[in-house]
Amino acid sequence: MIVAVIGAGQCSQEQYDIAHEVGRLIAKSGAMLVSGGLTGVMEAASHGAKDAGGVTIGILPGSRKEDANPYIDIPIVTAASHMRNIIIANTADVIIAIFGSYGTLSEVAIALKLGKKVIGIDTWDIKGVIRAASPKEAVELAGTYES
Amino acid sequence: MIVAVIGAGQCSQEQYDIAHEVGRLIAKSGAMLVSGGLTGVMEAASHGAKDAGGVTIGILPGSRKEDANPYIDIPIVTAASHMRNIIIANTADVIIAIFGSYGTLSEVAIALKLGKKVIGIDTWDIKGVIRAASPKEAVELAGTYES
Amino acid sequence: MIVAVIGAGQCSQEQYDIAHEVGRLIAKSGAMLVSGGLTGVMEAASHGAKDAGGVTIGILPGSRKEDANPYIDIPIVTAASHMRNIIIANTADVIIAIFGSYGTLSEVAIALKLGKKVIGIDTWDIKGVIRAASPKEAVELAGTYES
Amino acid sequence: MIVAVIGAGQCSQEQYDIAHEVGRLIAKSGAMLVSGGLTGVMEAASHGAKDAGGVTIGILPGSRKEDANPYIDIPIVTAASHMRNIIIANTADVIIAIFGSYGTLSEVAIALKLGKKVIGIDTWDIKGVIRAASPKEAVELAGTYES
Repeated sequence: MIVAVIGAGQCSQEQYDIAHEVGRLIAKSGAMLVSGGLTGVMEAASHGAKDAGGVTIGILPGSRKEDANPYIDIPIVTAASHMRNIIIANTADVIIAIFGSYGTLSEVAIALKLGKKVIGIDTWDIKGVIRAASPKEAVELAGTYES
Repeated sequence: MIVAVIGAGQCSQEQYDIAHEVGRLIAKSGAMLVSGGLTGVMEAASHGAKDAGGVTIGILPGSRKEDANPYIDIPIVTAASHMRNIIIANTADVIIAIFGSYGTLSEVAIALKLGKKVIGIDTWDIKGVIRAASPKEAVELAGTYES
Repeated sequence: MIVAVIGAGQCSQEQYDIAHEVGRLIAKSGAMLVSGGLTGVMEAASHGAKDAGGVTIGILPGSRKEDANPYIDIPIVTAASHMRNIIIANTADVIIAIFGSYGTLSEVAIALKLGKKVIGIDTWDIKGVIRAASPKEAVELAGTYES
Repeated sequence: MIVAVIGAGQCSQEQYDIAHEVGRLIAKSGAMLVSGGLTGVMEAASHGAKDAGGVTIGILPGSRKEDANPYIDIPIVTAASHMRNIIIANTADVIIAIFGSYGTLSEVAIALKLGKKVIGIDTWDIKGVIRAASPKEAVELAGTYES
């Protein structure tokens, strides 16, 4: 199972901590983490996943794998700019959106269009997004924990 | 100048008429029309543009140019599925969104992310979208009419 | 009918003249020209097509339409880097390759994979490429002239 | 380090065995394997890599991760058709081409264009491709073994 964490490339320390915890719980649940592979929320979630011994995939927009944050195990170099958002949505079984601006919104929308489950923490209030109040609730809603 | 009209592949007759009028006014203003090239709002706007003697570009998601509606002059065959939405947003100077569901939302979001002017007729209520009450107002706001 | 001219972004004056003549004859035959929209062979062919009153499409690799050469009527902004080569091959009914290096080879290969007719002037000697000795022969082989 | 194995979706048993051995040696050298994730040479190399305990990435052209062969650990779902070839070339540090037809040729060409090292086993004879006589020689030339 692959869970995407999407969010902005810049975030506050508080947001970093939340995204880190989401990543940690995804890895602990046994799922792989996919993200855009860069800074901010993407890095925080990948950092958390690595702290829990998980596997992290970064779908990079540019042409250099060196752009990946240090917590990415598998850098996928698309050189496709914003098109890489669509690959993230296609690759994930479930998407967790954390805060985020227009880039995150475009990804939420395409994920909903693709019929994927989208969980949001303090993100865009779009019909179809399942709201979670905490990292724990978000990952539980993602359904990656085996019962 | 290139104006995109984005919207769903299925629409009511009333919506068709509105999109047709938008396309007609875009062509009359001297701008080219770009759309996703398929049915519904895309076809209606292209139909309107051709009725006014304009040029219509269709950025198709599939691999066959035969998928273009009959009002497309320039079929661009991307075979890139939803990624083609991003090419539409990149190609247009201004975007007019008409109604629409998640696909339209993803395109609105990416256009705003790219810093493009986005005008909406009865579409998603997203910060940054300039609302227009009529086709006439939408095309005037697009600013393609020369003063 | 849409004919692609593919080739390198840098070329000698002699090569420019040949590509210009190919573009001119494509336009004269009534077909539209699609290319990568940049310099060198792409510019030369577009220049020739405009001299004959044709329509020119440029499928640009970057994110700025200003990168198009001055002979492009319809700039398509992909921001998809080398992926745009595949859109050119998909969009064209016939491809004429002129000289060219690895980028041209990749496009010739993908066009042959897509089952498109590929005509070559002094280009890679790949099975499936129909060789033409002159611009005139290339455009005749493209089959865009109506009988 | 990530090594790509590229080749056709259909192959003979003898070709399967060669690609399997290439995949096995890549994994044994400590590198990850990336491929197109489907059948034929792609499956054979992934199969070999898994037999040696390696990590396998499949960059899929379609929209369903179920299309991946059973030896893929990390399915990347691009829905971008032939464009995914370019992502493979961008993602790999070194490319090993095995036999192959036009699809493989397009990938060899784009990899050479990107300045990547390309090693070939019984594949297209293109300037810049380093020829290897055996799986062992190919993986040694790839340079992934630490000295």
